[in-house]
Amino acid sequence: MKTANSKNKIRVGIVNVTGYAGLELARLLRRHPSVELVSVSGRSAAGKKLGEVFPHMASVELTITAELGEVDFAFSALPHKESMDVVKALVSGGVKVVDISADFRLKDPALYQEWYGFSHTAPGLLAETVYGLPEVYRKDITKARLVANPGCYPTSAILGLAPVMKAGLIGSHVIIDSKSGLSGSGRTLSLSSHYAEANEDVTAYALEGHRHLPEIEQEVARFMHGAKPVVTFVPHLVPMTRGILSTIYAPLSGRLEASKDGIAELKTLFQDFYKDEPFVRISQVPPHTKHTTGSNMCIIYPTIDIRSGRVIIISAIDNLVKGAAGQAIQNMNVMLGFPETMGLEAAALYP
Amino acid sequence: MKTANSKNKIRVGIVNVTGYAGLELARLLRRHPSVELVSVSGRSAAGKKLGEVFPHMASVELTITAELGEVDFAFSALPHKESMDVVKALVSGGVKVVDISADFRLKDPALYQEWYGFSHTAPGLLAETVYGLPEVYRKDITKARLVANPGCYPTSAILGLAPVMKAGLIGSHVIIDSKSGLSGSGRTLSLSSHYAEANEDVTAYALEGHRHLPEIEQEVARFMHGAKPVVTFVPHLVPMTRGILSTIYAPLSGRLEASKDGIAELKTLFQDFYKDEPFVRISQVPPHTKHTTGSNMCIIYPTIDIRSGRVIIISAIDNLVKGAAGQAIQNMNVMLGFPETMGLEAAALYP
Amino acid sequence: MKTANSKNKIRVGIVNVTGYAGLELARLLRRHPSVELVSVSGRSAAGKKLGEVFPHMASVELTITAELGEVDFAFSALPHKESMDVVKALVSGGVKVVDISADFRLKDPALYQEWYGFSHTAPGLLAETVYGLPEVYRKDITKARLVANPGCYPTSAILGLAPVMKAGLIGSHVIIDSKSGLSGSGRTLSLSSHYAEANEDVTAYALEGHRHLPEIEQEVARFMHGAKPVVTFVPHLVPMTRGILSTIYAPLSGRLEASKDGIAELKTLFQDFYKDEPFVRISQVPPHTKHTTGSNMCIIYPTIDIRSGRVIIISAIDNLVKGAAGQAIQNMNVMLGFPETMGLEAAALYP
Amino acid sequence: MKTANSKNKIRVGIVNVTGYAGLELARLLRRHPSVELVSVSGRSAAGKKLGEVFPHMASVELTITAELGEVDFAFSALPHKESMDVVKALVSGGVKVVDISADFRLKDPALYQEWYGFSHTAPGLLAETVYGLPEVYRKDITKARLVANPGCYPTSAILGLAPVMKAGLIGSHVIIDSKSGLSGSGRTLSLSSHYAEANEDVTAYALEGHRHLPEIEQEVARFMHGAKPVVTFVPHLVPMTRGILSTIYAPLSGRLEASKDGIAELKTLFQDFYKDEPFVRISQVPPHTKHTTGSNMCIIYPTIDIRSGRVIIISAIDNLVKGAAGQAIQNMNVMLGFPETMGLEAAALYP
Repeated sequence: MKTANSKNKIRVGIVNVTGYAGLELARLLRRHPSVELVSVSGRSAAGKKLGEVFPHMASVELTITAELGEVDFAFSALPHKESMDVVKALVSGGVKVVDISADFRLKDPALYQEWYGFSHTAPGLLAETVYGLPEVYRKDITKARLVANPGCYPTSAILGLAPVMKAGLIGSHVIIDSKSGLSGSGRTLSLSSHYAEANEDVTAYALEGHRHLPEIEQEVARFMHGAKPVVTFVPHLVPMTRGILSTIYAPLSGRLEASKDGIAELKTLFQDFYKDEPFVRISQVPPHTKHTTGSNMCIIYPTIDIRSGRVIIISAIDNLVKGAAGQAIQNMNVMLGFPETMGLEAAALYP
Repeated sequence: MKTANSKNKIRVGIVNVTGYAGLELARLLRRHPSVELVSVSGRSAAGKKLGEVFPHMASVELTITAELGEVDFAFSALPHKESMDVVKALVSGGVKVVDISADFRLKDPALYQEWYGFSHTAPGLLAETVYGLPEVYRKDITKARLVANPGCYPTSAILGLAPVMKAGLIGSHVIIDSKSGLSGSGRTLSLSSHYAEANEDVTAYALEGHRHLPEIEQEVARFMHGAKPVVTFVPHLVPMTRGILSTIYAPLSGRLEASKDGIAELKTLFQDFYKDEPFVRISQVPPHTKHTTGSNMCIIYPTIDIRSGRVIIISAIDNLVKGAAGQAIQNMNVMLGFPETMGLEAAALYP
Repeated sequence: MKTANSKNKIRVGIVNVTGYAGLELARLLRRHPSVELVSVSGRSAAGKKLGEVFPHMASVELTITAELGEVDFAFSALPHKESMDVVKALVSGGVKVVDISADFRLKDPALYQEWYGFSHTAPGLLAETVYGLPEVYRKDITKARLVANPGCYPTSAILGLAPVMKAGLIGSHVIIDSKSGLSGSGRTLSLSSHYAEANEDVTAYALEGHRHLPEIEQEVARFMHGAKPVVTFVPHLVPMTRGILSTIYAPLSGRLEASKDGIAELKTLFQDFYKDEPFVRISQVPPHTKHTTGSNMCIIYPTIDIRSGRVIIISAIDNLVKGAAGQAIQNMNVMLGFPETMGLEAAALYP
Repeated sequence: MKTANSKNKIRVGIVNVTGYAGLELARLLRRHPSVELVSVSGRSAAGKKLGEVFPHMASVELTITAELGEVDFAFSALPHKESMDVVKALVSGGVKVVDISADFRLKDPALYQEWYGFSHTAPGLLAETVYGLPEVYRKDITKARLVANPGCYPTSAILGLAPVMKAGLIGSHVIIDSKSGLSGSGRTLSLSSHYAEANEDVTAYALEGHRHLPEIEQEVARFMHGAKPVVTFVPHLVPMTRGILSTIYAPLSGRLEASKDGIAELKTLFQDFYKDEPFVRISQVPPHTKHTTGSNMCIIYPTIDIRSGRVIIISAIDNLVKGAAGQAIQNMNVMLGFPETMGLEAAALYP
C-alpha cells in the first residue's frame, strides 16, 4: 500500500492495535491518502505481523511491536487507566494524540476516582484536552495537541441532544435508552459475549451507573450552561456485531408545541443545526443502525410524541466508526488541517 | 398423540393455525394433558395436513380445514377485524373462546375506529369480555365466556407496572421502551422482516402511535382508578426471533425514597405482589429474554435510578408464549378450572 | 417440582451440570415423569443453587455440589479424560451410567492415546460399554450398566448412513460435511465462540482430523462388517446456537440405479428402516435444523444426484438434544425399561 | 460526490439498481476514481431518488429512471431472461457491458432451455461473450465488448478448483458443498428469506440441480480440456447476510502424494498459481467468510485429507462483492485498461 509520495505523508501510529477500536483504526487509516500507518503496537501480539493476527489486514505490511515507533501522530486505543501515562509521554514528546480511551474525557479529575477507581496523574494535560466531538468543538480541536475521543454511547446521545438543548426546547430531564451490538464489549472474552449466551437475547446492563454516564452529564451540562442535568442512561446489548441505536426521551420545555407544526419546526431545527455537517444526517424516518454499518455517519430522527408532549430523538451510529475509530480520524483530520471527510468517505455496507 | 382417555378430554380448536401464534398454540396444546386439539383451521392451507405446512408438527395428525370443526373451546388467532365475527359466532354457539386478536381488548368501542379503522359490531360482547391477564383479572377470567388475550407488548409492560401503580409509587408519567424479536411481526412477508434487512439491525417503529398503546393506556388507567396516564411507548425491532424486553421509566411519586433502602423496599413490593404467581419471577439481576424462550415466564427486575429519582422496571417475556399462546392457554386453564400451569411447565430453552 | 409420589421415582444425578449438555439434561429431566433429579454436581459453581447460575432453572430447587450425591442412575457430562474415573467409580458402586463424554465410545483403547492423548485406564469397562445409539444398538442398551452416549456429529452422520451401508448401497467411500451451531463448542470461553467473531461468519475447522472421526469410522466399519471405511469428515461452524446439519456424499455401489426410480427406492428403504423409530423422521424435502430445535428428532432426507451417481443424505438434529442430552435420556429410558419417548415428547420450538 | 474533473471520467450506468447486486455496484462505483455513476434504472422505484430507497446512498444524487440514460459503460443487474434483450441493445449501441445475470454465461445456447426455460435469442453475442473471471480469462476480458459476470457459487468453486485441475492433480470427480448467506437469495420477499424462518437455521436446497451447476461444469470442463466432469454441487443457506464458503472435495489423481509433503507441494502450487493475483489470497488456516465481508478478496485454503487421499479446498468470498458487484468492477477495470484493483481496495469490514 506504500505510494511514491509516502515520504510526504504524516506518519501515524496506533497504540494497542489488537482490540476492535485499534483494528478499525488500521482498516480506515490504510486508505487515508495523506497519512501513512507506520507503527502499530500491542503487547500480547508483539512480534507478529498484523496479517497473522488479522488475516484481512494482510496487505498492511507491519509487524506489531511492544512499544510504538517514531510517529508524527498517534492514536491510543488502550484500555482506560493504561492509556493515561502512554498518552502523557507521547504528548510530551511532541506527538499529537487522539486518545480513544476514557482517560482524558472527564474535565473533573475527581470523577476518575469515583467512576474508574484511579487518581488522575495528569490533571494539567486533562485541563487542556479537547473533547473530540467535531460537530460541537471543531474550533478547539483545530488547535489541540490532545483530543479525547468520545465514548460510543455519548456520541450517539450528545449528537441527538445538542440541537434541542442548545435551543432550550427541553429542560434538564433526559432519558437515554441505548441498544448496542456486541463489538462494543470489545475483544476480551466474557460470558456475556459468548456466542451461545448473547445470541437470541436482549438484556440491559449497568443500571447502577454506566461509565459513560458522567461523560454524557458533563457534555449535557455544557449545553445547559452549567445547570445540572437529570439524566437516566440504560445501555442494552442486542444480538448484532456493530451499531448503536439511542432512543432519547425528554419533556418539552414549553418553547415548542406538541403538535404537527411543532414536529415540523423540530425537524427544521435539526436540519439547520447540522446542515454543514458531513457526518450527521437528519432522517425523515426512524433510522436503522444497518444504514451506518462501516461508515462514519450518525443518522438522527427527531420527533414529538404529541399525546405526551415528549420529544423523542433517535440516533444511530456504527459504534466502531463514528463511535470510535472513524471519529478519531475525523478528529485527526481537523487537527492536521485535512479535509474533514478524508479517508472516511465510505458509505454503509448494506445489507 | 391420542390417548386412551381422549373421550374425557375437552375438545379444543384453533382458528388460523398457520400464523406464528396459532402454530405456537398447537405446539403447546399438543402436550396439554386435559384437552385434545381436534380442529385447526386456516384458509390458505386448507386441505393440507398440519405436518405438511409445519414438518415439526407432523405428530399432530390433523388436517387444516377452512372452517373450525366442533369444539368445546376455541382460540382465535385471526388478524384483527377478521376475528370479531368469528368469535361472536363461536360464543353464540356456546363455545368458550380466548381471542388472541385485538378485537375484544379495548373497552371503549370508539377506540376501534380510531386505532384500527373499523366499527365494532359487537359492543355488547365487548362489554362482557375479560382482559386476559390472569395476574390482574384472574377472578373475572374464571367466569368468562370470552377472554381477550393481551398483546405481547402490553403483557410485558402491564406486568411491570402493576405493582408500582397499584401502590401509588409512581404517578401518571410512564415511558416504555420495548425491544422485540422478529416473530412479533408475524409470518406475513414484508421487507422489514426480510432476513438481509432485519439481520444486524436495530430500529424503532410506530413512533406516531402503535396499536398496543391504547391497550396499555386502558389498563394503566384502571390501576390509577381512572386518572389519565401519560404514556410514551416506543417499540423497536432487534435481530432475534423470539423475545420482548421492555424497559420502563417513571418518576417516583414521593412515597418511596430514591436510595438503596428505597430499592430494597421496591424489590420487596414486587416479590410480595407476585409471590403466588407461577409465571412471574422477580429477578435480582436484569433479565435476559433468553431466559424466557419457549416458556410462559415473565421475568421482572425493578430498581430505582437513585441519581434521577426514577423507577426503572425491566420486563422480559417470550412474545409468542407469555405474549400470546402461552398466556392464552393460561387463560383457558383458569376458565376451565384446570391447574393454571397445566401444559405450561416447560423451562426456557437455553442457550 | 417435587410430586407426591417422588418416593417411587428413580433418583438421577448429573455430573457437571454447568456445561451446556449438563444443563440440557437438567431441563429435560425436570419434566420426566418417572425419575427425579436429586443431585447435580459441578466444581466451579459448587455451593450455588442451580437457579443462581441458570435463572431459567430456578424451579429446580437443587444446590450444586462438588461431588454427586446418592443416586440410582447418573449422567456424566464431564469433559473427556475427566469422565473416565468418575464413571468407573459410579459403575463400581452399582449406579447405571450414561456417559456423555467420549471416554467410553471408542472400542479400541489405543485410539484414546492417538486421538485424545491419554491412556485408557478402564479397558475392561470400555469393552462392555454399549455405544448409545438406540436405533442401532437398542437390544444391547437394554442390558447395559454403562452406555457411551454418541457424539453430536456422529449421531447425525451414523443415522444417515446406517440404512444405505447396511443394505450395501454404497461402498466404503464417504464424505461428511457438517454444519454446527456454536453451542457445540460448549460454554468455555474462546475467541472462536466470541460473539463478534462468530457472528456473520462460516468457517471449517479440524481439517487435520476431528476427534469425532474415529468414532464415525468405528461405527461405519461395523455396518461394513469390519471392512475399512474411507471417511472424510469436515465440521463447520455456522452462526446459530443450536443444530447440526450433516450433508453426506457417497458413490452408489451399483445395487441401486441413479434414476428417479432409484431415488424412490432409496426413500422407501429409509422409510422402512426407520418405520418404528420415534425419533427419526424421513422427510420429503431437505430438512431444516430449525425443525429439530429443542426436540429429540433426527430428520433425514435421502436422495441420489442422478448426474453423478452419488447418494446424498442430509441429516438434521439439535446437537444438544438428539446430539447429547436427549439421546442420553433416550438411552436411560431403554436401560430402565421406560417407554423410550418418556420425557422427550416436546416438538421443536419453531420458529 | 462530483469532482472537478468529472468530465474526463467514464460515464457508467446500472440497470436495475434496486436489487442487492445493483445496490452493491452503486456503493462501490461511488468511490471509483475514474468513472462516474451517471444513471441508475429500476422499474418499481422509477422516479424516486436513490437515497429515498436506500438512505445510506443519499450522497449519490441520482434519480432512479425507468430506462438507462446515456452511458459509456453499463452493468446489468437484471434477473435472468430479462437481461438478455437489454444487454443486446446496449452492446449494439456501442456500450461496453458487464452482465451480472446468467444470460451470457453459458456457451451452449441449448443449456438456457434446459436450465432456465427460455430460448436464447442472441446466440451470436453469446458466442463472443467472455466469462468474466479475470484470474482465468484476463486476456480475453481486455478485448471484450460484453463480459458475463460469473455466479457467486461458481466464482468460489472455480477459483478453488483451477490450480489443481489445470495441474491434473485431481480427476473429473468433484463435490462442492457451499454455504451461503441470505443476501444471495436477493431482495425479493420469500418465506425462506423471512427472518423468523431463516434465523437459527441451516438447510440445503436445489438438490435436484442448482442453476449454477452447468456454469461450474462448463468451466471445469475447460480446465480438463473438454473431458466431462462429474460434479455434485449442493448449496446451503446459513443464517448470515453476506458470504459464501465452498468446501470442495476431490480424490487425488495420483500425481501428488497423500502426505505432509504432498500438502506442502499443494500449498506451493496454489501460492504460485495466484502469486500475482490481487484478489486471491492463499491462507495457512481455514478461511472465515468474515475475513472477506465487503471486500473483493477470495481466500483459499487447500489441503489433503491424508487418511482418505482426498484434496479438500476451502474458498471464501463475499457473495455480493467478489461474487457479484466487485468482480463486475474488476472486469470493468480490465476492459477499460484501469488498474485492476481501482475502487476495490477496501479491506474486509471485520468484525
